[in-house]
Amino acid sequence: MSILIKNALLSNEIKDIYIKGNIINKIDSKINAKADNIIDAMSKAVLPSFLNLHTHAAMNLFRSYADDMKLEDWLKKKIWPVEARLTEDDVYWGAKFACLEMIKSGTAFFNDMYWHYGATARAADEMGLRANISAVFIDMFDNQKAKEQIERNEKLFIQSQQYSNRINFALGPHSIYTVSEKSLLWAKKFADKHNLMIHIHLSETEKEADDCIKKRKKRPVEYLEDIGFLGDNVIAAHCIHANDKEIKILKKYNVCVVYNPVSNMKLCSGVFPYEKMKNAGVNICLGTDGCASNNNLDMLEEMKFASLLQKSYSRNPVALPAKDCFKMAAINPAKAFGLNCGRIEEGALADLILVDLKDLNLNPNHNLVSNLVYSANGTCVDTTICNGKILMHNRKVEGEEEILRKANEVAFRLTANKSA
Amino acid sequence: MSILIKNALLSNEIKDIYIKGNIINKIDSKINAKADNIIDAMSKAVLPSFLNLHTHAAMNLFRSYADDMKLEDWLKKKIWPVEARLTEDDVYWGAKFACLEMIKSGTAFFNDMYWHYGATARAADEMGLRANISAVFIDMFDNQKAKEQIERNEKLFIQSQQYSNRINFALGPHSIYTVSEKSLLWAKKFADKHNLMIHIHLSETEKEADDCIKKRKKRPVEYLEDIGFLGDNVIAAHCIHANDKEIKILKKYNVCVVYNPVSNMKLCSGVFPYEKMKNAGVNICLGTDGCASNNNLDMLEEMKFASLLQKSYSRNPVALPAKDCFKMAAINPAKAFGLNCGRIEEGALADLILVDLKDLNLNPNHNLVSNLVYSANGTCVDTTICNGKILMHNRKVEGEEEILRKANEVAFRLTANKSA
Repeated sequence: MSILIKNALLSNEIKDIYIKGNIINKIDSKINAKADNIIDAMSKAVLPSFLNLHTHAAMNLFRSYADDMKLEDWLKKKIWPVEARLTEDDVYWGAKFACLEMIKSGTAFFNDMYWHYGATARAADEMGLRANISAVFIDMFDNQKAKEQIERNEKLFIQSQQYSNRINFALGPHSIYTVSEKSLLWAKKFADKHNLMIHIHLSETEKEADDCIKKRKKRPVEYLEDIGFLGDNVIAAHCIHANDKEIKILKKYNVCVVYNPVSNMKLCSGVFPYEKMKNAGVNICLGTDGCASNNNLDMLEEMKFASLLQKSYSRNPVALPAKDCFKMAAINPAKAFGLNCGRIEEGALADLILVDLKDLNLNPNHNLVSNLVYSANGTCVDTTICNGKILMHNRKVEGEEEILRKANEVAFRLTANKSA
Repeated sequence: MSILIKNALLSNEIKDIYIKGNIINKIDSKINAKADNIIDAMSKAVLPSFLNLHTHAAMNLFRSYADDMKLEDWLKKKIWPVEARLTEDDVYWGAKFACLEMIKSGTAFFNDMYWHYGATARAADEMGLRANISAVFIDMFDNQKAKEQIERNEKLFIQSQQYSNRINFALGPHSIYTVSEKSLLWAKKFADKHNLMIHIHLSETEKEADDCIKKRKKRPVEYLEDIGFLGDNVIAAHCIHANDKEIKILKKYNVCVVYNPVSNMKLCSGVFPYEKMKNAGVNICLGTDGCASNNNLDMLEEMKFASLLQKSYSRNPVALPAKDCFKMAAINPAKAFGLNCGRIEEGALADLILVDLKDLNLNPNHNLVSNLVYSANGTCVDTTICNGKILMHNRKVEGEEEILRKANEVAFRLTANKSA
């Protein structure tokens, strides 16, 4: 398979791009080559696709099902009851819907944690995306549950071999307040042995930090360091309440931290200490979190919130400039996962997007990155290519009507059936 | 002229809507009537259009021209030099572009303040929008300048009679730190005499409040009360630093206040005291401010920022719920301007939009208002109707290519010509 992209704007020059297999084979001002697909990218700019580093994909089913509520009511009265009814098939359609939304807004990779691992893996694989997918691992400090979870994850790891190499199995110990030390260490050992990533929620709320201090006389990141959990295969979502010492520890172990500004604002979790993290040299990436706390997966919108939240709280209009937002959304995550993408260069993976320069929000084009971050939204993306395959062109994705129909059916059955 | 909208979702029911002239004439489950235009609104919901209560429309030309800068550098090095070169024709194309963007995101009314009044008025009139437009009035406490501004505004008021009755002339005294007391009082008197609105920036920054206290031994709102400036024809943009006493005064005089969350965050102006304003019963509306400090005019995005900024700072996830955001964007402004719109009812002005229920971000449709506020953006709007005229249908606006081309030409000429 090959793709020839003609006349694309690449860093202020018009270039042709030849993709062979899943790799950017050649970039030149004029390429005359035969290709299975030729895309005329006149009036379009080529950019690396986005990587969404914290999702619960199938929660797309619950978009706007429960907003403007207190956290406890939200969880206990709304989210947990419907999640308890979720089947493998429900998660499959929810995840397909999330994949569709990501493709439509230029995201080609996501780092997920949710129930029914196989359903999300199958959905992402079929949709052509790249993904790091973990099953939620919660034992609530119960030995029997821990045993079940460990066995389940061992099985899922074997099962995961059936998917394409775009789909990676990961460990998903939910958090330090839902997973025992023993299970955390098992996850770490298993991940290290099999070269897997670990996805965990960390220091999302003040309560989490306070409870950890009460229970263990140390803060969450210190606790994880002490038990030997930290490493460069750990993706820690949130890290809002990490203090200076903890930030140094995160850097020491090259933990990748994920900033989720919309979710943090909506759930009132606090403000991610961006400036301190950046000054410490931590690898910071961007995530949307699930649709029940966002309520979308649009990485362009997320970049705007990322910057403006930092500007507002620091009262510094120069804080977190647009180009750094773009790095957090498209470049830093590739580093975290050791992926050969996040740049438009010969030899890199063909994970890229074309944005429509005729989109009103990208005009005038005084500064493309500023326009992408502060003005545009995901609908400016015309074409999404992942691993050398066209997943969207002219904003059309194969099978989108069926996905929307099925996801709606599932969503309404789950939320209507309140007595189940 | 008449329009028959068939099969639109209106508050959970499917309805036909018959528009005669500029009025919603009839709403029923089935209307069989001849009409000049018939719109099939199957899979679309009908809603009142948005009213953007604080804009500097032609600043669309400077979108993303100067971001991530300190306020003083931004103004002195970037914005003021290009504004000094603006011609009437430049503002005309900038305003046309802004009108196009507003139509495309469902806004049918805007409250503007900018240079070259006639250019913005002509643009809004031609584009079919409803608008309240003021010329920037700045005298810098100079008698000669004040005299010139007064004469200019008297002339503009007469000139404004040439536009359709959708376009209203308003007074635009810029702020208390750029306009003398004498001129403020002239504006108030002139507005009262001719039944005009007044558009002013008020308490946008801490510095404005501090300087006012130093100079006048009172706070900005107290000062305006004392000189007899306040009234229900005053639209006060920002009001971030109004204290409890000032909020009471704003309510006492039924001043309409405009919350501009994106601009406030981007320029680090502070946080609008929403809860206090709401509890005091102040009429609160939403605005985007100009594109140089936003960087778009999307009222759907603005609603999300409005809610999330309040939630984050108050650490209360129930703060500023979605339905109140929608009121601030579509209902409260109609009250402020005494406009017979902001609702889909027989007898109301036909200022309305159709949103595409197949837009991914509006699915599943557990709650349409939540989806509009937290998930969607302006591209979910399929049709915009103002004053009984279709301004956009199927996302197409007449003449949009030319507007984009001309606005870009103007924008690049203005910003390239740095030595002029």
